[in-house]
Amino acid sequence: MRGRFIALEGGEGVGKSTQVKALAAALRTRGHDVIETREPGGSEGAEAIRKLLLEGSADRWTPGAEALLFAAARADHVAKTIRPALEAGAWVVTDRFLDSSLAYQGGAGGISIGQLRQLHQVGSVGLLPDRTLLLTLPSEEAARRAEARDRGASDRIGGRDADYHLRVAEAFTLLATQEPDRFRLIDALGDAEIVTERLLAALEDL
Amino acid sequence: MRGRFIALEGGEGVGKSTQVKALAAALRTRGHDVIETREPGGSEGAEAIRKLLLEGSADRWTPGAEALLFAAARADHVAKTIRPALEAGAWVVTDRFLDSSLAYQGGAGGISIGQLRQLHQVGSVGLLPDRTLLLTLPSEEAARRAEARDRGASDRIGGRDADYHLRVAEAFTLLATQEPDRFRLIDALGDAEIVTERLLAALEDL
Ligand SMILES: Nc1ncnc2c1ncn2[C@@H]1O[C@H](COP(=O)(O)OP(=O)(O)OP(=O)(O)O)[C@@H](O)[C@H]1O
Ligand SMILES: Nc1ncnc2c1ncn2[C@@H]1O[C@H](COP(=O)(O)OP(=O)(O)OP(=O)(O)O)[C@@H](O)[C@H]1O
Ligand SMILES: [Mg+2]
Ligand SMILES: [Mg+2]
Repeated sequence: MRGRFIALEGGEGVGKSTQVKALAAALRTRGHDVIETREPGGSEGAEAIRKLLLEGSADRWTPGAEALLFAAARADHVAKTIRPALEAGAWVVTDRFLDSSLAYQGGAGGISIGQLRQLHQVGSVGLLPDRTLLLTLPSEEAARRAEARDRGASDRIGGRDADYHLRVAEAFTLLATQEPDRFRLIDALGDAEIVTERLLAALEDL
Repeated sequence: MRGRFIALEGGEGVGKSTQVKALAAALRTRGHDVIETREPGGSEGAEAIRKLLLEGSADRWTPGAEALLFAAARADHVAKTIRPALEAGAWVVTDRFLDSSLAYQGGAGGISIGQLRQLHQVGSVGLLPDRTLLLTLPSEEAARRAEARDRGASDRIGGRDADYHLRVAEAFTLLATQEPDRFRLIDALGDAEIVTERLLAALEDL
């Protein structure tokens, strides 16, 4: 039986990486094989592209080049890691997927959502998660958590200004509104254990 | 005044790199500023992507990922090298451009030409050369030249089989047929000097 494909989404500092680990552990306790992965990256080729994307100056890539590189990394991640795992019956829990591109390069970056979906079609035959868990947090709290973690050392994209990150959050909300079956909004405020319980509850039907 | 944008196209070993140099020198003699460049590559970011594309095993990238990486490299090449040079009034002579993607990833690689043009739209706002010079040579002669040059050490794409390269040549011919104003077919058989004369003649109207 094919495994389930779960994506955690949301802006910087909402707790995605923390919850990918916790959710994967909880699913393993329930007897599932689980692969934890992340974007950009998650396969050898995609990790090489990740380096190009996250290093260098803020204007290293044009928005169009950046969108193409994210789609290329995702194509490799899907072909080499995600599809083989799902076909082997494992659950895949990923830290970001397509919706991050739609929110960052689309909503906040100016590339049209239709064009970004075309890139995903070319690279990944349009593969979508069975469930996308959108972690939401007041922007001040998310910024506070990310700042406490990074102490000012953010990467090319995390380092963009507050207005950019507000537009990212707005774009995520819009995407969730448009696909209510696939998305669940998860309140990310509170202890990590409580947030994990909310994530598990949002997967009950799967 | 904006400079002219000239692309040399054709399969492996037809003499593109040889003729980019010769053509640029001839145009300089006529008083033009000329930039010589090549794809994949031609700018710092694009050269980094070139490495990912030409190194590694034959199946390192899926056809979709490969198409996205070529488009990303081209986007950077256009933004950082080609457009600035044209706007400064220089002529740009490039060793390969979009039509190589259409012929290799499209005609021979199985990605649809329409999708590849979409990627070019996202990355490079659809920029096309003022003239595309397609060098044509019987496949045995092209293979003989490339083999004499490389002595068996071809890269990820050059190393594909003869059938692939025949499909590339066929795809180039079809593209030239569809855009007769932009393309000129150039007989690449004969001494390099004679071929250069043919290229110059095909630019007379520019
Ligand atoms: N529920 C929580 N309560 C308080 N702090 C938390 C909680 N969850 C995570 N954190 C902390 O907040 C910071 C950001 O969390 P995390 O790195 O998981 O976020 P993220 O969404 O992966 O961020 P990024 O997008 O930057 O990778 C970390 O230092 C983490 O330990
Ligand atoms: N007119 C010519 N007659 C004979 N040999 C030539 C001629 N033009 C180029 N060559 C030789 O043929 C070989 C291939 O030429 P070149 O490298 O310019 O082709 P290319 O189209 O750039 O190939 P590739 O696509 O592999 O880069 C080189 O060794 C070159 O010196
Ligand atoms: Mg994280
Ligand atoms: Mg060459």
